[in-house]
Amino acid sequence: MNRPTHILATGTALPGDPIDNAALCEVIGAQPEWIDLFVGTRTRHFAVDLDTGRQTHSLTDMATDAARQAMSRADVTAADIGFLVLGTATPDHLMPTTANLVADALGLDRIPTFQLQSGCSGAIAAFDLGIRMLDDERQLGLVIGADVCAKHLRIDRDASTAMSPSELINFVLFGDGAGAAVLSHDDDGAQLTMRSLINRFAGLGRAPAQQIEWFGLADRHLDGPALDEDYKAIEQWVPSLSRDVLGDVVAAAGLAADDVEYLLPPQLSGRMTTRVVQQMAPAAGTREISVVADTGNNGNALPFLQIDALANEIRPGERAAVVTIESSKWIEGGMVLEGAS
Amino acid sequence: MNRPTHILATGTALPGDPIDNAALCEVIGAQPEWIDLFVGTRTRHFAVDLDTGRQTHSLTDMATDAARQAMSRADVTAADIGFLVLGTATPDHLMPTTANLVADALGLDRIPTFQLQSGCSGAIAAFDLGIRMLDDERQLGLVIGADVCAKHLRIDRDASTAMSPSELINFVLFGDGAGAAVLSHDDDGAQLTMRSLINRFAGLGRAPAQQIEWFGLADRHLDGPALDEDYKAIEQWVPSLSRDVLGDVVAAAGLAADDVEYLLPPQLSGRMTTRVVQQMAPAAGTREISVVADTGNNGNALPFLQIDALANEIRPGERAAVVTIESSKWIEGGMVLEGAS
Repeated sequence: MNRPTHILATGTALPGDPIDNAALCEVIGAQPEWIDLFVGTRTRHFAVDLDTGRQTHSLTDMATDAARQAMSRADVTAADIGFLVLGTATPDHLMPTTANLVADALGLDRIPTFQLQSGCSGAIAAFDLGIRMLDDERQLGLVIGADVCAKHLRIDRDASTAMSPSELINFVLFGDGAGAAVLSHDDDGAQLTMRSLINRFAGLGRAPAQQIEWFGLADRHLDGPALDEDYKAIEQWVPSLSRDVLGDVVAAAGLAADDVEYLLPPQLSGRMTTRVVQQMAPAAGTREISVVADTGNNGNALPFLQIDALANEIRPGERAAVVTIESSKWIEGGMVLEGAS
Repeated sequence: MNRPTHILATGTALPGDPIDNAALCEVIGAQPEWIDLFVGTRTRHFAVDLDTGRQTHSLTDMATDAARQAMSRADVTAADIGFLVLGTATPDHLMPTTANLVADALGLDRIPTFQLQSGCSGAIAAFDLGIRMLDDERQLGLVIGADVCAKHLRIDRDASTAMSPSELINFVLFGDGAGAAVLSHDDDGAQLTMRSLINRFAGLGRAPAQQIEWFGLADRHLDGPALDEDYKAIEQWVPSLSRDVLGDVVAAAGLAADDVEYLLPPQLSGRMTTRVVQQMAPAAGTREISVVADTGNNGNALPFLQIDALANEIRPGERAAVVTIESSKWIEGGMVLEGAS
């Protein structure tokens, strides 16, 4: 980081009202107490009407709303934006990209746009790319993270068929949403300053623990599986990788563990995050900022939602460490942010 | 371009033998003469066995092969590679990304990896990102472009159902393949030097002319359309946008039109590219390097295949202009490359 990058403002968009476990269980036929005990996610937002199965918000809608809020809070207009980066695992289409549909909706023109195919570390990858895109010509840019599980969420399924355990757990874990941030090299009006960033593939020789498929004309009739998660591998590896990233990203900022006041840990579910934080062993007094128990796991959006919450609490000179782990093929992500003065 | 970026070597991978129009027409029930006359694509490669419908090569396979060839030609090993960027419209899965599966196959470790969701301008976007990623810490990197239409290629369809015109034209136009390049700030052993690059969204207020869908668990049974192309809009806009990009990217390199010896134009089909080049009106004597009539339109791979062909012809100090137009949502891409001495 030769020249510091600043976050001028963040924005978020969560579709519709929060869906609590009682309402969700009416659809999926599970017990709310079971979700509370084992998963620990209380509510989530879906871009689908659970009564009708109709999609209410596209990824484009949510990403545009989050970006608009961030731009409004940063007091910048479309003409100020020099580039756009969107990270998502679940684009509206293969082509055109959601990034370009969002650019059109925001009134952006003649700028580079990038859409990263990414999962739980996508926000960090988007920040990494955003930092690289800032230069004398492009002094402000938008980074966005968003996901929507509507295409994989079977609401109108035959009620006589029991839901498989893996499909059921996905309903419970996941949610939809978007977050955005306006980046700048100029610290005028900044909320947060980026002090270090780690974005690295750590999956050499390690099997994927998350697989999400898409189907085309030629294979959609084959009824193949769409989602597969290896929760044992996730439970085995996420805590130790998270601890490694926390140590590395704090050291990369030239800091010691107890120089960091806030921890924004990986967000899988309420319970899982609690266990991960215990094993990360942050310095005593470190305040955790987690959102997943209220928002559900909305993938690329999550770190933006956490940073948005952080921005309301952090004081000038305080530091926060963000840690993400993408279990699909083991990507480690981390950032240290400092409250701007 | 504060510090010039060099291409040390390129690599390509085309699956199986070329499929000529006679062989293709046995599958799709069209006339070879019609393809020759109106489309002008003679052969293409498919990652699918046309007799059995079985997929023979994944996107990961092809991208890995192309990257291996580029690394071998550049005489670099996995430990030298500081980052990986892959552009594609057709990943093997939503998660894990093909970029990370390729990183694993190549033996890369602890480096940033990016997968861009992109179409015909994806190669330029990947170069743009690659240029930004090179720094003192990461002095070499891989950029890859690849596409595979296997998931959308219905071979085992009911022969009694006539193929729709749009599905038929897609069979004729598209192909599968991959290309790669090793980038460096160091000109030692370089083949080509990048003199300018344009990568910009130009779709504000302009409707998409290409739409490619993916299906999930919830919508794959609905039998919705998968591909839609507005060939009238493509014919109307691609030539004039191409002419604009050619002028701008040559000027950005500080050159005049007749300083450029080679033109690598947009590749839709043999006939279409011929018409586009006529309307681009390059300087007299400019040599065109096109591959689409032999390879089919393999999207993100195409500019790499053209640059690979260029590298065999260009002499030190000669210049080439690459122009790409992504009609999905109108992305303009361009580069000026110079033969290294």
